[in-house]
Amino acid sequence: MTTGRFISLEGGEGAGKSTQAAALAAALEARGVAVVVTREPGGSEGAEAIRGLLLGGDVSRWSSHSEALLFAAARADHVEKRIRPALEAGQWVICDRFVDSTRAYQGAQDIDDAAILALHAFGSKGLLPDRTLVLEIDHNQGAERAAARDAGAADRFAQRGPDFHAAVAAQFRRIAEHEPDRVRLVDATATPDVVTQRLIEALADLLP
Amino acid sequence: MTTGRFISLEGGEGAGKSTQAAALAAALEARGVAVVVTREPGGSEGAEAIRGLLLGGDVSRWSSHSEALLFAAARADHVEKRIRPALEAGQWVICDRFVDSTRAYQGAQDIDDAAILALHAFGSKGLLPDRTLVLEIDHNQGAERAAARDAGAADRFAQRGPDFHAAVAAQFRRIAEHEPDRVRLVDATATPDVVTQRLIEALADLLP
Repeated sequence: MTTGRFISLEGGEGAGKSTQAAALAAALEARGVAVVVTREPGGSEGAEAIRGLLLGGDVSRWSSHSEALLFAAARADHVEKRIRPALEAGQWVICDRFVDSTRAYQGAQDIDDAAILALHAFGSKGLLPDRTLVLEIDHNQGAERAAARDAGAADRFAQRGPDFHAAVAAQFRRIAEHEPDRVRLVDATATPDVVTQRLIEALADLLP
Repeated sequence: MTTGRFISLEGGEGAGKSTQAAALAAALEARGVAVVVTREPGGSEGAEAIRGLLLGGDVSRWSSHSEALLFAAARADHVEKRIRPALEAGQWVICDRFVDSTRAYQGAQDIDDAAILALHAFGSKGLLPDRTLVLEIDHNQGAERAAARDAGAADRFAQRGPDFHAAVAAQFRRIAEHEPDRVRLVDATATPDVVTQRLIEALADLLP
């Protein structure tokens, strides 16, 4: 039995990650691959309960340190209860956000990248995706899309200002530069079908 | 302005920690000391929300790693929002459980002590009490007391068996042996008044 592949989709607010996760799953299933689509924070019963604490409430509800610990706790539960079992059963896992989101969003505040990776090593035995696809759009355009989508119900992260979202985008590019084998930047300023095609191309070496 | 003192009360289930926290606060206030009594997990708004996740639900709800991360997140919030501000205002803080409970309870499972201290360094800048008082009673007797008190509403930790509670008691003794200046074992198999007197004696060198 072969182990499944683990793909994460990353990017700022309104980049189209959840739309592309579904489209990518359909494209993979058409190739005969069994796919699980999941998301973070959340994806398992315990992690979804932590998601409620992380995304709800006031922007300043948690310090960046508490936040990083809560994300690591949620991810540990998600990896143990859902992602690893699926991979071990030979399924592919497509995850809408994973540890690189914590590195980008908490790293854009005051948390050291090494500290986030240490928490990930502790909670999730350092599991990394086989491929991480970062959907890039103009972050101002993304914030507008997210605001239109959320219609006044934006979460704690979406509520932050343009400087924060620019810093997040810079963090994602920095990660991609340092880990070019795993992490690929994908231009997501196109129609959904074109973006899906670009994602498939960025996975070409992994496809059966 | 002088900084307040930070005292934690530790021990297994049913050792009388919350009763003694109140009695100790009254004894200190009678000496003119301003005292804040608090508890873990919890003690601040965010940490109390995490407490609900930690203590409720099935015994096996969280892995020991997720649990350790959740405790560290709750403690980071509690230290930042409540404990440090009180100490900086010159108040004494009496806390019913602190990081040594995580070391004892998660250490009695499969978590390395160094890993728990690393999470504490990350979340709470490694804040340790000026004095930690471990209330020791026979752990079977403690479990009976806790069961009578909780009347069918025992939390996830109280529900565990006698072997687990024996391992927790051993972990507290090990911590006390390694950090004799900070951590004192107190025989709590006596009337509440006698135990309070013993706690005061174990704080004698810190009292004004």
